[in-house]
Amino acid sequence: MTADPRRLAPREGHMPERDRPRADARAKVTGQATYTTDVRRAGMLHAKVLRSPHAHARIVSVDASRARALPGVHAVLTRDEAAGLAPVGTFVKDWPVIAGDRVRYLGDTVAAVAAVDERTALAALDLVEVEYEPLPAVTDVGAALAEGAVEVFPEPPLGIVPHYGQGASGALRPLPNVPYEFRFTMGDESAWDECDHVFTDEFRFSRMNHMHLEPFVTVAEATDEAIEVWSAAQSPFPLRRDLATVFGLPENRVRVNVPYLGGGFGAKHGIRAESVAVRLSQLAGGRPVRYCMTTEEVFLTSSQHAAVLRYRTGVKADGTFVARSAEVLLDGGAYSDLSPLVAEKAGYRAAGAYRWRYLDSVARAVTTNTVPASAFRGFGGTQATWAGERQVDLIAERLGMRPYELRLRNMKDLGELYAPGETPIDSDLKEGLRIVAEAIGYADRDRSGNRGMGVAVGIKDGGGVNKPAQARVKVTTRGDVLLQCALTEMGQGGHSAMAALVAEVLGCPRERVRYAPIDTDHSPFDQGTNASSGIAVMGSAVTQAALRARDAVLQFAADQLGGVDPAGLTLEDWTVVDAAGERHPLVPWIMHTFGGTGFEFTGEGFFKATNSDLAPLEAPCIFWEVGWAAAEVEVDPDTGKVTLLQLVVSGDAGRVISELGARGQDEGAAVFGLGQALFEEMRFEDGCLLNGEALLYRVPLAEDIPERFTSITQEQGHAAGPFGAKGLAEGTMLPVAPAIAQAIADAVGAQLTELPMTPARVWAALRAREASEAAGAPAAG
Amino acid sequence: MTADPRRLAPREGHMPERDRPRADARAKVTGQATYTTDVRRAGMLHAKVLRSPHAHARIVSVDASRARALPGVHAVLTRDEAAGLAPVGTFVKDWPVIAGDRVRYLGDTVAAVAAVDERTALAALDLVEVEYEPLPAVTDVGAALAEGAVEVFPEPPLGIVPHYGQGASGALRPLPNVPYEFRFTMGDESAWDECDHVFTDEFRFSRMNHMHLEPFVTVAEATDEAIEVWSAAQSPFPLRRDLATVFGLPENRVRVNVPYLGGGFGAKHGIRAESVAVRLSQLAGGRPVRYCMTTEEVFLTSSQHAAVLRYRTGVKADGTFVARSAEVLLDGGAYSDLSPLVAEKAGYRAAGAYRWRYLDSVARAVTTNTVPASAFRGFGGTQATWAGERQVDLIAERLGMRPYELRLRNMKDLGELYAPGETPIDSDLKEGLRIVAEAIGYADRDRSGNRGMGVAVGIKDGGGVNKPAQARVKVTTRGDVLLQCALTEMGQGGHSAMAALVAEVLGCPRERVRYAPIDTDHSPFDQGTNASSGIAVMGSAVTQAALRARDAVLQFAADQLGGVDPAGLTLEDWTVVDAAGERHPLVPWIMHTFGGTGFEFTGEGFFKATNSDLAPLEAPCIFWEVGWAAAEVEVDPDTGKVTLLQLVVSGDAGRVISELGARGQDEGAAVFGLGQALFEEMRFEDGCLLNGEALLYRVPLAEDIPERFTSITQEQGHAAGPFGAKGLAEGTMLPVAPAIAQAIADAVGAQLTELPMTPARVWAALRAREASEAAGAPAAG
Repeated sequence: MTADPRRLAPREGHMPERDRPRADARAKVTGQATYTTDVRRAGMLHAKVLRSPHAHARIVSVDASRARALPGVHAVLTRDEAAGLAPVGTFVKDWPVIAGDRVRYLGDTVAAVAAVDERTALAALDLVEVEYEPLPAVTDVGAALAEGAVEVFPEPPLGIVPHYGQGASGALRPLPNVPYEFRFTMGDESAWDECDHVFTDEFRFSRMNHMHLEPFVTVAEATDEAIEVWSAAQSPFPLRRDLATVFGLPENRVRVNVPYLGGGFGAKHGIRAESVAVRLSQLAGGRPVRYCMTTEEVFLTSSQHAAVLRYRTGVKADGTFVARSAEVLLDGGAYSDLSPLVAEKAGYRAAGAYRWRYLDSVARAVTTNTVPASAFRGFGGTQATWAGERQVDLIAERLGMRPYELRLRNMKDLGELYAPGETPIDSDLKEGLRIVAEAIGYADRDRSGNRGMGVAVGIKDGGGVNKPAQARVKVTTRGDVLLQCALTEMGQGGHSAMAALVAEVLGCPRERVRYAPIDTDHSPFDQGTNASSGIAVMGSAVTQAALRARDAVLQFAADQLGGVDPAGLTLEDWTVVDAAGERHPLVPWIMHTFGGTGFEFTGEGFFKATNSDLAPLEAPCIFWEVGWAAAEVEVDPDTGKVTLLQLVVSGDAGRVISELGARGQDEGAAVFGLGQALFEEMRFEDGCLLNGEALLYRVPLAEDIPERFTSITQEQGHAAGPFGAKGLAEGTMLPVAPAIAQAIADAVGAQLTELPMTPARVWAALRAREASEAAGAPAAG
Repeated sequence: MTADPRRLAPREGHMPERDRPRADARAKVTGQATYTTDVRRAGMLHAKVLRSPHAHARIVSVDASRARALPGVHAVLTRDEAAGLAPVGTFVKDWPVIAGDRVRYLGDTVAAVAAVDERTALAALDLVEVEYEPLPAVTDVGAALAEGAVEVFPEPPLGIVPHYGQGASGALRPLPNVPYEFRFTMGDESAWDECDHVFTDEFRFSRMNHMHLEPFVTVAEATDEAIEVWSAAQSPFPLRRDLATVFGLPENRVRVNVPYLGGGFGAKHGIRAESVAVRLSQLAGGRPVRYCMTTEEVFLTSSQHAAVLRYRTGVKADGTFVARSAEVLLDGGAYSDLSPLVAEKAGYRAAGAYRWRYLDSVARAVTTNTVPASAFRGFGGTQATWAGERQVDLIAERLGMRPYELRLRNMKDLGELYAPGETPIDSDLKEGLRIVAEAIGYADRDRSGNRGMGVAVGIKDGGGVNKPAQARVKVTTRGDVLLQCALTEMGQGGHSAMAALVAEVLGCPRERVRYAPIDTDHSPFDQGTNASSGIAVMGSAVTQAALRARDAVLQFAADQLGGVDPAGLTLEDWTVVDAAGERHPLVPWIMHTFGGTGFEFTGEGFFKATNSDLAPLEAPCIFWEVGWAAAEVEVDPDTGKVTLLQLVVSGDAGRVISELGARGQDEGAAVFGLGQALFEEMRFEDGCLLNGEALLYRVPLAEDIPERFTSITQEQGHAAGPFGAKGLAEGTMLPVAPAIAQAIADAVGAQLTELPMTPARVWAALRAREASEAAGAPAAG
């Protein structure tokens, strides 16, 4: 890997903490860091779960009496013991802790056991007798929406529709097997009349697994009156809310502790292993229960949304984009979880990076008898970008234009609105595209030998919907800092970045800043670690908290100096420098004023986007997350095998807070995109997952990374986050697959519309191309 | 016990939470409540300590090699492994974790072992070979101050003197075996010239043990870089500071968690079991180490200060008090711990409840080869009240006046200053004395049958020195509350009282308020739970936090109502009532504004007395803690046995926040005073504690409580705490022994000057009285 020097150039002044390694590096490489999987509680029991072998079946009977009698078993949970628990779901409450009258996918939770060890728990599961009556299953969106399809929920569960602003609306269960439909419209529908060409194309997007190395794992201690969990949870407060809902407790009786996470990528939102462990702990008289899933169980618990996207796009003869209608069908699996939100985002993001006079979209979450789909890095934006960028290439080919120029012609300008009431675009999209094109040598590319290049861009509204975040900084007598905020450390480097912000504001080395353990009883409230929100949302709250703590210190110093103006004072590593440059150590003042135990100065920070009635959702987005990619491939026309020769990715950080962190996000997201482009796919057959284990599920390997792999973290400086920063982590993933697809077309003319672009699919597209050329017209394959 | 109805009369309006049982009652009586002794960590080791069998000796050698070799032993701590650790002490750093070149009392810490269980640890201690060279010991203050006495610290350890205001000063090591001397002067020394009589008397005060039912206990997990303890600690942040000092870490790398405490009474200040457990955990590679002392070890770790008090007092012929010089010698035991602060308080409180034209005092902490003395309920005030109140009785007898009238003649008025710059007296002292005298029937008392009555008063400056306290309230989407503050629950009912304050402000039932676990990483800073400071200091911070949270909620509601004035809104159990009386539930507004996960409203509170240059210490006291007592006794003149017939005690709560809590404090303190009056005494012989176990150390039993035991919690309403409240817990203890002593004199003429007033001492005083009467003059015995 090479690093472009451009990303090292700071915008204003020097931020001393930006070029430091991660704060948790040493603890992690020495094995000192505590993950949930390391949590051990005295007297801890171990849970295992019995899962459905059917994609869809009625449960006739469950007999767990022999399991209960097994020595070492402390609790057995069947639908009887789960009867009083509420099901969960963000808008539609449909996912029960234990399946009730029926199982809805192969892997559904039927019973659970807590025992002295995992082996005993597994032995007990073997003794649970379940009688099923198999039912017909719908295992993809086509089958689920077909006339007369079996209904996964014959009686619709409870649901709510969020509030919307202009242009957007949502509907619960507009069709059988569709729990939620989102619609969005902007502009003037008469724009269609101005189109010289209207193209309709369909794109398919397969289902990835998150492949977080740490499985879903939790340790729960619970009674009927109070719950405490240690959990691998991205978003502690949403988990608290969900557990409070399931178990009918006030939120202040549920305590969520979150150690380090071994990756999340969206999967660790909401309840995963927790409800089973909590209920087992209650049944075991409050003894702690650990439930750590196997990788195979993780595959059966959460996934990305497979999608079918139909884009109808009208353009002028000169290539100007005019109007688009997008229809998106997302395979939500058996339970709705976050599918409604993913549908909203997939629908809302149909415009891509381009200017339209009219746009409408409808996005449906579809229920199937497969593994539930949930949040996944990109969150609907990946699906939308795949379809949108691919259609640009198809249109370019049809119009005889170059994909690169067609993009520049239609791309939104810096500061332009995406939709009425939205945050103006805060990156120069064209500049970014030029940077990656230039870095890969697009203009002078050599297409010989079945080689070709492609460029693409992806944008998503970043930072989450309407997220309030709070943070708190405590500074001890000697100037050491405790930072309290619920941003979880999932590997993304968030804790290092937050500490760097505090250190920058307080004028101290980052080592002085300790991130307090995340604990919902104490941590300031936060809506969750998601949507690349860390730097822009929580970072803003943290920066404000640090500024307020610094102001409190300087005001104290000003008082000690006889009432000078605190604005003339600066703080340098716990020494106050006055306007005349004289240095005043703080410790003696503090001890004199507050007595022998000293004091803690504190500052509170809060951030939330202002709500807007004009916005399609409830607040304009926090920032625009943008990624650009350029790829060079070589395609073997006989086998369809694609060799990635070069990959250039770039994100716009606005302002880099943590250099290695930003680079890690850009490069990590790129590799995710690469996996999606060429390899990754959860393959189902009649609702049965065929490759649901680590050895069978193909992710990018080190050898798949091209030798020429360049990341360029731009610092365009247009963002509103702390020091001009904005989020990374998802943006750079979006354009990778489209850039590679365009490169394949550039190399051999095959236009792929389905992911991943396996040799078989490339080979098929090449054959379709040949057939179509023989028939005299270009075609999508 | 009977309860006077006076204490039920609220001053203004009704506070709905005041007549509720304690919030922790159910958890405690059902055994659900977690104390430190219940804390179990996975892989936890158990510690035991080898203690010195000599009162004073040089350690020639320590050989722990055989202990280290014992299977099951994971760490052995001798002076070698403790070499780098700093000793502790509030002003004088003299108490090492493990004795170095010498042991200084019988019970001093010589070595410690962490093993798989306590039995193995004890077996290992048997294998530690220590060679001692005994040294001469000084085992009381007389011996320690004698010419040529052996010095316990031949080389004085490091110390600091605090800052003082007018009239007060401190000196380190003014004499051999005196680590600290406090001096205080107020008024005009020429007042002595106006005295018609000058009386000098000496009083003796024995050493009590705290007798907290829960021993010193801690669980530590520590590396060289970070420490976490769960500990029975009254004051989490001072413990954090002390551990940071001993182990050379920044305070933000030390985390102190405090579960429920089973009593403290001053003993659980500072490091007790912690440093040994922490170091053993470090030596055991970070494995958790539990160290739970036996009751016998507790007796060898901390105690009250025995004292000799010499009061020289000048009065006019009509009984008007004029001038006093007090000399106080406090037996601090082997290590200074909090002795300097206790000396300050014993010296400062020499004025008692009375008006003086001149007062000076000197109070010396004296080092002896006995168990270290530390904070103890009353904190020097008990010693001062014993001497001061007793001398009033002696003077009354000498002047032929009645003790009751002599008190009223000289007592300070409400609002009068105790000393220049001090907080004005915030109780009507005379009114309180009248209340207890009336309640016991003092005016019409029947002195037949060797019966008699006595009344007394005690006051102390309450709330601690210069204490800053912070608190935080978080209110969830549905109006449930998390209260964050580091006030520990030692049985005093502090958590219930704090929750009641929050409930009162937020207009919700107390059940909605949950006290977040105390954890120095998260809890707002607080200087400690001591000096009866809970209601007045932390209660003020908590009330402010709740008010700010309420204001945030009402401002939010005002915005939702289109910008109405929030002053016109009230909060009633999470519903906002507008000026027109219309009710608006908050949850829908919150969900609409902040999104699906909701929000937490927060408020921060802070309280600290304003520093004052005029005050003898750094800030005027927070409030005056006052107790009154009246006692009726019957004395057997042949045996000296005292039977307590009736006891009336009264404190001034200012305003009662928690009725059962206030009553519990008044009655509990009275029983402490009763134990001190008649029973309790740690008896030493040549530095060896003779009765250092629960069966030998005599505390008041249920049968010792008189049938007629009345507590009257006054609500005088003059205090500045929340809703007019001020602290209880110590005041009512102060006057009990003096009232009983006066009753004994009233019954049989014997004037006791030494505590406890055992039958032997009463008998001796009776004989002295008879001898003195035979010689024609009254005398102190």
